[in-house]
Amino acid sequence: ENLIKYFSAPHIDERGILTVITDNIPIDNFKIKRVYYIKTLNKNVIRGGHAHYKQTQILYDIEGLLEIEYHTSINNGFLLLKEYEGIVISPLVWINIKSLTNECLYLVLANGEYNESEYIRDKNKFMELISNDS
Amino acid sequence: ENLIKYFSAPHIDERGILTVITDNIPIDNFKIKRVYYIKTLNKNVIRGGHAHYKQTQILYDIEGLLEIEYHTSINNGFLLLKEYEGIVISPLVWINIKSLTNECLYLVLANGEYNESEYIRDKNKFMELISNDS
Repeated sequence: ENLIKYFSAPHIDERGILTVITDNIPIDNFKIKRVYYIKTLNKNVIRGGHAHYKQTQILYDIEGLLEIEYHTSINNGFLLLKEYEGIVISPLVWINIKSLTNECLYLVLANGEYNESEYIRDKNKFMELISNDS
Repeated sequence: ENLIKYFSAPHIDERGILTVITDNIPIDNFKIKRVYYIKTLNKNVIRGGHAHYKQTQILYDIEGLLEIEYHTSINNGFLLLKEYEGIVISPLVWINIKSLTNECLYLVLANGEYNESEYIRDKNKFMELISNDS
């Protein structure tokens, strides 16, 4: 599988909620080089719309409900991501992220620095790449 | 200085806000081994109350206003942390974190795995350690 979903249990007490994002990542040797977050204020906003050549990213839902549309060399479809759920996005996985709620917030951990040449933003080019890959 | 404050400019457009936490960290060679976040639902909650022997942590304010009480070998006091602001917490820096708003959210990036023996939770012991250190 090249889109793996996981869950991190929150620790809740009277002071609030502590959640460790990195304890349950279901892949080995993920080195975090870059951390960013996206806050979407309005419902039905779509972000993403690209794949990566070599980078792997962890997308973790902190607040709100997300609909992830994915396209990989083996399958495509939709999945819902709730609070405390994350996904491992391998290279050559196309992702659209749609916020189903207002005020959604998600964190991304990437195993590489920002590099525009790492992005595949043309869907036709992506389709060609994964057909060669499989 | 052993408590450094920094700011990460958000990129805002009609789809929402994208903020890169790691682009402006004012220290070199920070390797992220563990990522967690704390969500405090109520005002005036205090967390922290410890220092670390060797770990360095980045605390980044995503939502809400935080009052940081600190005690280091060279000084002590309070500072306010607003959204998009972070601090580098070096080893042997005692921190209390107080939420001045409801619904505050902050992220922590640590350069080591969780290890209970890494925590100094006794303030007297901490005072002794920093007096030897200076």
